[in-house]
Amino acid sequence: LIIDSHGHITAPAKVYDFQAKLIARRAWMPTPKLSDDDLLPSVKHHLELLDQVGTDLQLISPRPYAMIHSLINSTVVGLWTRFVNDAIYQSCALAPDRLRPVAGLPQFRDSDITASVEELRRCVEELGFIGCLLNPDPLEGGAPPPPMSDRYWYPLYEEMCRLDVPALLHPASSSDPREPYSLHFILEESIAIMGLLNSDVFTDFPDLKIVVAHGGGAIPYQVGRFRAGEFRFGGEGDFEQRLRRLYFDTCLYSPSALRLLIEVVGADRVLFGSERPGTGSPVDPKTGTSMDDLKPVIEGLDVVDAESLAKIFETNVRAVYGSRLLPA
Amino acid sequence: LIIDSHGHITAPAKVYDFQAKLIARRAWMPTPKLSDDDLLPSVKHHLELLDQVGTDLQLISPRPYAMIHSLINSTVVGLWTRFVNDAIYQSCALAPDRLRPVAGLPQFRDSDITASVEELRRCVEELGFIGCLLNPDPLEGGAPPPPMSDRYWYPLYEEMCRLDVPALLHPASSSDPREPYSLHFILEESIAIMGLLNSDVFTDFPDLKIVVAHGGGAIPYQVGRFRAGEFRFGGEGDFEQRLRRLYFDTCLYSPSALRLLIEVVGADRVLFGSERPGTGSPVDPKTGTSMDDLKPVIEGLDVVDAESLAKIFETNVRAVYGSRLLPA
Repeated sequence: LIIDSHGHITAPAKVYDFQAKLIARRAWMPTPKLSDDDLLPSVKHHLELLDQVGTDLQLISPRPYAMIHSLINSTVVGLWTRFVNDAIYQSCALAPDRLRPVAGLPQFRDSDITASVEELRRCVEELGFIGCLLNPDPLEGGAPPPPMSDRYWYPLYEEMCRLDVPALLHPASSSDPREPYSLHFILEESIAIMGLLNSDVFTDFPDLKIVVAHGGGAIPYQVGRFRAGEFRFGGEGDFEQRLRRLYFDTCLYSPSALRLLIEVVGADRVLFGSERPGTGSPVDPKTGTSMDDLKPVIEGLDVVDAESLAKIFETNVRAVYGSRLLPA
Repeated sequence: LIIDSHGHITAPAKVYDFQAKLIARRAWMPTPKLSDDDLLPSVKHHLELLDQVGTDLQLISPRPYAMIHSLINSTVVGLWTRFVNDAIYQSCALAPDRLRPVAGLPQFRDSDITASVEELRRCVEELGFIGCLLNPDPLEGGAPPPPMSDRYWYPLYEEMCRLDVPALLHPASSSDPREPYSLHFILEESIAIMGLLNSDVFTDFPDLKIVVAHGGGAIPYQVGRFRAGEFRFGGEGDFEQRLRRLYFDTCLYSPSALRLLIEVVGADRVLFGSERPGTGSPVDPKTGTSMDDLKPVIEGLDVVDAESLAKIFETNVRAVYGSRLLPA
């Protein structure tokens, strides 16, 4: 099986029409009802795009750039997140063999994590979701958020462990005008990895499972710097080893980066993820294929064999997401 | 010749004793005079460290973590920067065949760039400095600084072009507690590259020469993401080509990262830089050598030949720094 661990919902305009009104009206409007007919054309189109590249199953979550975690107030964020999660549930129900649901969390910039814990529980226990997106910066560039080691996050880590679901660590938008489209993802992933690894989080939560999107931001490329830096502060130079406490997806649209990721963290820590359809979907005139058609690129690397390919495409995501991924 | 483009001054305690007092007393103290005897032991030690790894010539600049660009007031920053630049000048004069001076700039968080332009002029025209360090974030994490495309920076770019000297783009400290030692370097380099390439800077200053430290932060690893992203916004997918408008140094302490850098930007854009002695100096118990002993690591990569090695170790740095590097 080719399982793409990193996908986002393809939704009709009606969904974002609601979001725009919800924001503009500061939540003073009723939540619309989506019919299966509302969602079916988008779902069909999404499946065609997966068919084109041979993806059997994709995990879909909210579009991170649409999560609006720092906007307006927590009521808007809460209503929007619940609405999108319900749309994801309904989309997956239309294609249960092809799409599996990953929940967004209503992480508001000024709120503690309680609402996120409750929404995660609802999604997993009532709707069969298999994991969640975790945004390490719900302030979206406005000010530094609590570090990933902060007790602020602990109730969520606790609930993730109790429910036995992983998180895809995936930042969202940014209000910093210096950060062009999606650069914030890369920066916040880098900060979050360091926050998780230089702390007690994995000692306090030995069962916590976190997949870092986009090949781990800057860290696998800069691994030597952080390994060297630790020697200076009396560390044991085991940074590369600690990095393997996390998982990483392959949302990197260049062969040299995919090669480096697999070489640095090992094939057993890499989950196939393409984000198709998304940033990588444009057709590269050099190759004539979509940049997110990553399966042949990964298969063509000189650092993989049949065994590591099986891990990257199927075994690792099964191990991380557990029995909820493909119920018997 | 093996020319290391990325080194920082090794200075005696007397230098930082002055810095501490200058900060604590808010500049209300006289600047001490350094004798050659004050500096000689540090310079000798520094040269021994270069000898150990076969470096013929190193470019030395202020220690970025000691630049204190956002601290206290512009008088402190100005006095300190001038003092360090003078110490660099004096150190290089003690070993003129081995060390070449690169100036720090008194970039204060709340000041325009005038003082930096004046100090650059003094260092180059009066003292024979060959380039400067440029900190893209003189606010050191306190708030977003002006983007590299902002007119704020233009007088400095103009003066760099007039004097025909390059800058080593090198961030400094950070007040964000989420950023452990030197992570800020990587993040701000990534932001600065995007700011320079997504702007008119190189159209307005076709002769501007900028070397980005530490292998360009996250960008060479994430190049596919930014190339793909540009197609979505009507770009031509020439991001990799535009990236080659910049130069990058090899301060990356892992073979896979060095390999990726050379593969992505090309050997003609890579300058040997080790920062020795610095973050990479601890001895790696795995190899028994210092992590910043990068020459054999680069020579051992499967993406270099004799021609590209000559470029990386000598030709490129000569091209970027020009005739001031090795005066006849």
